Amino acid sequence: MPPITRDALAALDAADALAPFRDRFILPEGIIYLDGNSLGPVPKATPGRVADMVAHEWGESLIRAWTEHGWIDLPLRVGEKIGRLIGAAPGSTVVADSTSVNLFKLLAAALDARPGRSVILTETGNFPTDLYMAQGLTALLGRGHKLRVVDDPLHTLGPDVAVLLLTHVNYRSGAMHDMAAVTRAAHAAGALVLWDLSHSVGAVPVQLAADDVDLAVGCGYKYLNGGPGAPAFLYVAPNLQSSLRLPLTGWLGHAEPFAFDPTYRPAQGIARAVVGTPPVLSLTALEVGVDLMLQVPMADLRAKSVRLVDLFLALVAHECAEHVFSPLTPADASRRGSQVSFAHPDGYAIMQVLIERGVIGDFRAPDVLRFGLAPLYLRYTDVWDAVAVLREVMQVGVWRGDQFQQRRKVT
Amino acid sequence: MPPITRDALAALDAADALAPFRDRFILPEGIIYLDGNSLGPVPKATPGRVADMVAHEWGESLIRAWTEHGWIDLPLRVGEKIGRLIGAAPGSTVVADSTSVNLFKLLAAALDARPGRSVILTETGNFPTDLYMAQGLTALLGRGHKLRVVDDPLHTLGPDVAVLLLTHVNYRSGAMHDMAAVTRAAHAAGALVLWDLSHSVGAVPVQLAADDVDLAVGCGYKYLNGGPGAPAFLYVAPNLQSSLRLPLTGWLGHAEPFAFDPTYRPAQGIARAVVGTPPVLSLTALEVGVDLMLQVPMADLRAKSVRLVDLFLALVAHECAEHVFSPLTPADASRRGSQVSFAHPDGYAIMQVLIERGVIGDFRAPDVLRFGLAPLYLRYTDVWDAVAVLREVMQVGVWRGDQFQQRRKVT
Repeated sequence: MPPITRDALAALDAADALAPFRDRFILPEGIIYLDGNSLGPVPKATPGRVADMVAHEWGESLIRAWTEHGWIDLPLRVGEKIGRLIGAAPGSTVVADSTSVNLFKLLAAALDARPGRSVILTETGNFPTDLYMAQGLTALLGRGHKLRVVDDPLHTLGPDVAVLLLTHVNYRSGAMHDMAAVTRAAHAAGALVLWDLSHSVGAVPVQLAADDVDLAVGCGYKYLNGGPGAPAFLYVAPNLQSSLRLPLTGWLGHAEPFAFDPTYRPAQGIARAVVGTPPVLSLTALEVGVDLMLQVPMADLRAKSVRLVDLFLALVAHECAEHVFSPLTPADASRRGSQVSFAHPDGYAIMQVLIERGVIGDFRAPDVLRFGLAPLYLRYTDVWDAVAVLREVMQVGVWRGDQFQQRRKVT
Repeated sequence: MPPITRDALAALDAADALAPFRDRFILPEGIIYLDGNSLGPVPKATPGRVADMVAHEWGESLIRAWTEHGWIDLPLRVGEKIGRLIGAAPGSTVVADSTSVNLFKLLAAALDARPGRSVILTETGNFPTDLYMAQGLTALLGRGHKLRVVDDPLHTLGPDVAVLLLTHVNYRSGAMHDMAAVTRAAHAAGALVLWDLSHSVGAVPVQLAADDVDLAVGCGYKYLNGGPGAPAFLYVAPNLQSSLRLPLTGWLGHAEPFAFDPTYRPAQGIARAVVGTPPVLSLTALEVGVDLMLQVPMADLRAKSVRLVDLFLALVAHECAEHVFSPLTPADASRRGSQVSFAHPDGYAIMQVLIERGVIGDFRAPDVLRFGLAPLYLRYTDVWDAVAVLREVMQVGVWRGDQFQQRRKVT
């Protein structure tokens, strides 16, 4: 490989078909933002849209806005749009609640749909809330269900597994599962599969319908740029919708919410997965992020993401060779998402200095530096500049000094 | 009673200590808004606060805003403020999820806390989502628990009742329970009590600690003016917090969310009731409404509310005497909240015309006209003017014509 130069990367930026999207975001001066995998930045259209929703829709229409401005349709409308980003069939995706709550709904429904089976199978290192919600559910049911956490779930798929619960792209390492192959294996073992797409949607191609996925959940505030704590989504394959019994049976999932019927009857299709009154303010902001993402050709997004990650890995290997950054992210692009992670024993202190110097990634205990590489607003030169700051931090060695010994103690 | 005149009411408005609060809200010209019990109007401080949160906190601080702007504390901080409005002890109220989801959490925990008892007892006419969530929970548990819906739950409190689930102020009639007496009766029968405060908070005095209430939930978008679909709150009495097992065990309710521990351990106290990442945008708007409400002397609020409701009932009785408006709201102020409801066979059509003429109440099937009387922004003269419009509508009789026969068919 010829040596990489900043000029060569600037040329790549100049030729980048996605480059104009950068201008669609509010990005503070002097910052290289590599944490869009945790919280995406503000789309420039969001402040105006939210202000209009507050002042005009809520302010002027008041209660009438539920119909006049289509608030009541937001969960299905935005869900449908997200469905297009994840290759879902129409009518199978809805926005509701948080990722955690949606996991609970679908895990409960999956156990109910596989009555002879007692195991929720997942892998070591799955995102904690996925594990916790499963633990809470099995404790609540009290019928001997258990969460089984193993290193290699594909080799543990037995006749006792009701549902295989996996996060498509791991929050810590960035490693990505082969959704089609894993789903086939789960089905061959008679299990349902539930994918957490929190680190996938808006970052990597997903084809739920083509891959025959049963159930999925995902997050609105990472690569969808929907705002902090944006509502989450859930997906149920069309063939499962009428038989699946969801445990959170709220009034807006009723067949006739405004009939005020004393007995719950589920709405047709995916609408039954809505529980309470939707958070209109948060949904309005989420829709802006989703609408923006729908304008992006996924193939271009993925191609640029792969190149950004390759570049980051190569530059760190080259520029910081004498330091002990152990990449956790697979070198094989087909096996990773849109982030780069390294383990380093001084990871926490290093990340603090990086953030002070304007390179915003994040740290995950005990020793992981994470850098999200969102192709919509990052440039190839941003990767160069970020690694240059990292190199400088490591060379001057400030992170070794007393300052950081102290920092590590107090935090 | 001497005849009421508009001038006399204008004099009441001029002397009203709460009158200045009206100017704290965006209220469209030409509208008398009597639906704040369904969706409160926009506090004038909200658009600016939300805009600042989006553009500056999210826009400039990005991920760092979770600590720099205290986003991570919002569920407890706003919960604590709501706790002051409902007479809760410090550390017993938190904002999370929707009212429906919070009902599920607390009902599940209540059944778990009363293992020898199988019944969730509630009353006929409770808000549907309260019934539906209980139905979903008992179906999920599959252990013979049942929801028992009766006309007079106080006479059905037996040794099989685990939890008495009641809405303090009925959404339809506006009738209010005696919280202290009902709670005592439930405790005497060995049951826990769970109050839904959706139509109480910000509208009537509530003293959860003084009344020895075990559990409560409530809504942020009605009298708290927190915005459409604002997040809800829940309350757990301090003595129950450590023993209660909540079924939705999400990462932000973990003792150490950022330890990424594979096993759930609940946070100390009420913080365990937080599940997923909080909806910051919606919480920010909610906090504005709550902060405004905290400035209002509750005794003044209640006194004005009682007078507004008395006035509405008296004026309808006097001005619309020849029409069949049957009040559903108790005449006894101690037994009602801050709304007035009437049954009328043509209720739907009448409400449509009222709304067209700028008097915004709402309709609840099959025949109920509801008028919410929020003392913070309504004037005595507004009640006069609203009833004048109602009288005019009834006198000219447009609601009897073909127009409304047709309207009733198509809706």
